[in-house]
Amino acid sequence: MPEKLTDVIAELALANRILAHEGVLDAFGHVSVRHPSDPGRYLLSRARSPAVIEPDDILEYTLDSAPVKPPKAHLYAERVIHGCIYQARSDVMAVCHHHAPAVMPFCIAGKPIVPVFHVGAAMGADVPFWDQHDEFGDTNLLVVKPEEGRSLARALGGHSAVLMNRHGATVVGGSLKELVSRSIFMCQNAEFQLRTLASLGAPAPLHPGETRLAGSISLMPNVLSRTWEYWCTRLAAAGAMPPQGGAKKAAPQGGAKKATRRAPAKAAPRRGKARRRR
Amino acid sequence: MPEKLTDVIAELALANRILAHEGVLDAFGHVSVRHPSDPGRYLLSRARSPAVIEPDDILEYTLDSAPVKPPKAHLYAERVIHGCIYQARSDVMAVCHHHAPAVMPFCIAGKPIVPVFHVGAAMGADVPFWDQHDEFGDTNLLVVKPEEGRSLARALGGHSAVLMNRHGATVVGGSLKELVSRSIFMCQNAEFQLRTLASLGAPAPLHPGETRLAGSISLMPNVLSRTWEYWCTRLAAAGAMPPQGGAKKAAPQGGAKKATRRAPAKAAPRRGKARRRR
Amino acid sequence: MPEKLTDVIAELALANRILAHEGVLDAFGHVSVRHPSDPGRYLLSRARSPAVIEPDDILEYTLDSAPVKPPKAHLYAERVIHGCIYQARSDVMAVCHHHAPAVMPFCIAGKPIVPVFHVGAAMGADVPFWDQHDEFGDTNLLVVKPEEGRSLARALGGHSAVLMNRHGATVVGGSLKELVSRSIFMCQNAEFQLRTLASLGAPAPLHPGETRLAGSISLMPNVLSRTWEYWCTRLAAAGAMPPQGGAKKAAPQGGAKKATRRAPAKAAPRRGKARRRR
Amino acid sequence: MPEKLTDVIAELALANRILAHEGVLDAFGHVSVRHPSDPGRYLLSRARSPAVIEPDDILEYTLDSAPVKPPKAHLYAERVIHGCIYQARSDVMAVCHHHAPAVMPFCIAGKPIVPVFHVGAAMGADVPFWDQHDEFGDTNLLVVKPEEGRSLARALGGHSAVLMNRHGATVVGGSLKELVSRSIFMCQNAEFQLRTLASLGAPAPLHPGETRLAGSISLMPNVLSRTWEYWCTRLAAAGAMPPQGGAKKAAPQGGAKKATRRAPAKAAPRRGKARRRR
Repeated sequence: MPEKLTDVIAELALANRILAHEGVLDAFGHVSVRHPSDPGRYLLSRARSPAVIEPDDILEYTLDSAPVKPPKAHLYAERVIHGCIYQARSDVMAVCHHHAPAVMPFCIAGKPIVPVFHVGAAMGADVPFWDQHDEFGDTNLLVVKPEEGRSLARALGGHSAVLMNRHGATVVGGSLKELVSRSIFMCQNAEFQLRTLASLGAPAPLHPGETRLAGSISLMPNVLSRTWEYWCTRLAAAGAMPPQGGAKKAAPQGGAKKATRRAPAKAAPRRGKARRRR
Repeated sequence: MPEKLTDVIAELALANRILAHEGVLDAFGHVSVRHPSDPGRYLLSRARSPAVIEPDDILEYTLDSAPVKPPKAHLYAERVIHGCIYQARSDVMAVCHHHAPAVMPFCIAGKPIVPVFHVGAAMGADVPFWDQHDEFGDTNLLVVKPEEGRSLARALGGHSAVLMNRHGATVVGGSLKELVSRSIFMCQNAEFQLRTLASLGAPAPLHPGETRLAGSISLMPNVLSRTWEYWCTRLAAAGAMPPQGGAKKAAPQGGAKKATRRAPAKAAPRRGKARRRR
Repeated sequence: MPEKLTDVIAELALANRILAHEGVLDAFGHVSVRHPSDPGRYLLSRARSPAVIEPDDILEYTLDSAPVKPPKAHLYAERVIHGCIYQARSDVMAVCHHHAPAVMPFCIAGKPIVPVFHVGAAMGADVPFWDQHDEFGDTNLLVVKPEEGRSLARALGGHSAVLMNRHGATVVGGSLKELVSRSIFMCQNAEFQLRTLASLGAPAPLHPGETRLAGSISLMPNVLSRTWEYWCTRLAAAGAMPPQGGAKKAAPQGGAKKATRRAPAKAAPRRGKARRRR
Repeated sequence: MPEKLTDVIAELALANRILAHEGVLDAFGHVSVRHPSDPGRYLLSRARSPAVIEPDDILEYTLDSAPVKPPKAHLYAERVIHGCIYQARSDVMAVCHHHAPAVMPFCIAGKPIVPVFHVGAAMGADVPFWDQHDEFGDTNLLVVKPEEGRSLARALGGHSAVLMNRHGATVVGGSLKELVSRSIFMCQNAEFQLRTLASLGAPAPLHPGETRLAGSISLMPNVLSRTWEYWCTRLAAAGAMPPQGGAKKAAPQGGAKKATRRAPAKAAPRRGKARRRR
């Protein structure tokens, strides 16, 4: 995980776009990362669709989800999801909230997602289910109030993801890349579980021991480098890599005296570059 | 909502293409908007697939669905859908008729679409079902006669959308952007409902209070600007933004003395521009 | 329908690519058209995937499916499908054989496709089912022998399409454009029927009167021009329009003294042109 | 099948990308080919996603899956799949391991894939099912140890493909092109079987005689040239053809004194070239 703030911001913009391009996020959803040097703050875009987020959109928040600087733009109404989880879970370095089509049937039916193949074990053996209605009655189903965010964080507990009734999912990671992998593979697992249900019947989960052992596959060094390059290549091939952050805006927030122009990720692949050069 | 006729026409061409690009419209379907200064007229393209509509294709109709000027091109056979709804519903400013794959199974099976997730509440708690056969017997299922259009408008009543047996759906909005959002989110809701049905069983609708509260999420300022930018960006990235309307044709209809060349929408995004420059 | 041979050939190459781009054809499948001035011959590509067919690939065959000139390339093993249908059906001007994903479940399960929405009526009320095994026992399921082709043509009878057990479908039309429309809309109907089956139960067909009346919607002038422009635009936007046929090869076969370079279809749209110019 | 090592390497990079572009491989999966002149060795990429593999990534392995030269990069953890199958099956010239969405429901439910249409017969009448748990208990489900690879090879036996419980499939071929065809058509068959199951009920397999006769369709000369051109064209149209291998790296391994720049495949099509020239 990068340690310089401008690098973290660039990676966060990239992660937003990767998750959008891979179908986890759409017009909605958001991804945050804990501040690399101040664990009492986190970084999150202004209210914008993940597919178009740029480094200059990234703002800094306290764990109460208040913007550190007076905002000039709309903020995500649901940013308490991020703040409340960072408060409750010191091990969490990145959070993603999404409404991916693969998880929605489970959120709508109130049925559990379980790991059904080796890569799907990345989400862990259990994904708790949170029903906002239990505690708060009729709402617009958004997680806006601090007490709603804290309730969600309690439901998440020590797990890696939580389903939200009629709404979507929230996923956490020990790093931004772990979060991206887990979010994508949890959706793939959900998709496979749905396809199996629709054609061959309800599948049993992996054996607990298999889930435990397979859970770290996506974090193996030869896997993590492979998947990140793959997702970056696909994003670049679509002409959708984020622009680099400008010095003006990044400087006051990040304290960097001079933001140099640099590629947003190591893995900028040959094919992508060729396309962007055209 | 823009108030200048040329702006409304540009936004209507854009809305057609957004709805096509997001999979609501295909070779068929049409979108109209009420005339911004004359509530007794509406604007609709000549008979053309929504994905290719240009501002110069937009014609002006009376609420009897007669073209204001003698047409030089084919007109949509089903334009009475629009005229009859504008006559019956003074609050409606925009109408979309479509055959989206997500709603067709419901139209074919005669089963209701119900709101199953927060964003899907944009269509309201109830979507009535209209069966042309009840009143008119065997037809080619198109809505062509004024009495067919009036029957459909009666079935719609005060709702936001109506399903049409073996045919498709018609959706209305208080503005063109509200219509676009509602059309897209209703399809997404239908898709999620179908996927749930096929794998996990028939889902119950949201609680009535949830539907009422969540129904306006897509109209929240920080949401509307986000979704519109998102859909425009996707359209532009596909190289499919509409050209701008020419002065010659727009002038006599709209009365504008001089139609200046201007971007068709505020949200023309950086990525899209870059691609079009190539 | 064009009457000049070079125009017919250009339209045939275009039809192949449209049907490939719209998902009816893939690596396999083929489309033919009856010779415009000699009803005892038909035009069909050499053995090549439809997505890449060029006018120069089109060869002339007798109705016995023998090439008029000694072929220099592989021929489709299944060309008897075309010859036998042209022999049996003087009203048929174009034939398409395909394995589209939308029809395959019906071919595999031996269950009928029925018209379930207005546009789907283009295929007619009944699509007969042909099982090669009934008459020929174990085969490789290809239609290669004249007697197999004749059996298929008998099964087709006076209908517009026939399903082939474990294999695919064959569709016919009174013109190439009618064939393209029918093939696409039959697949869309099959897709909607499948989605309904998987989620809401087996749908009844349209009322017979509705099927009769709605069956000609796709041939209405304001519809045919709209759909053809739409499909051409999509093909052009993908950079996949066929090149124009060279004079050298077309001349001996078609007898044209001078093949001028000309656009392959009237509907070459602005957007497509712009992309190809880049 | 090419006989020169540099040609084989180029074809292997191309095969990786074709299988990725056709949806058989994603971030994961790998394809190998036996060494053209030394049957005791095989060729496989360093650990990299198939969609981005270049000729320079291809390494040489002994049948014990040890790299011939000290590797400078991560290797696939599961390369024993390849080595153990080449050891057990002298007729096998190419191996593909994948987690395609079409086969995963069968791997998850423990249900057989059976040939349901003519082209699907390419995988043979029976695809055995291997459950790593039977012999090895709880694992991370990867095939990493030689004894795991040998167990998988035993389960494959003399068949053309084997399903792996909760994991994916491994497919073999008598040539790289046969392997590519079989992998793609087995996925298509699985997809059709799933769609049939979800909508119309469990389909019976083809008659055994049909499977035997139809099994070689994809290897007919007029079919093999057609499919290879088709897949290459689609890959090229997406701008995703592999670059050519550099002389420096290929030389020491392949022994070629001079690696000339040459097109990676015969079938580089006109359309693809045009796009890359832009």
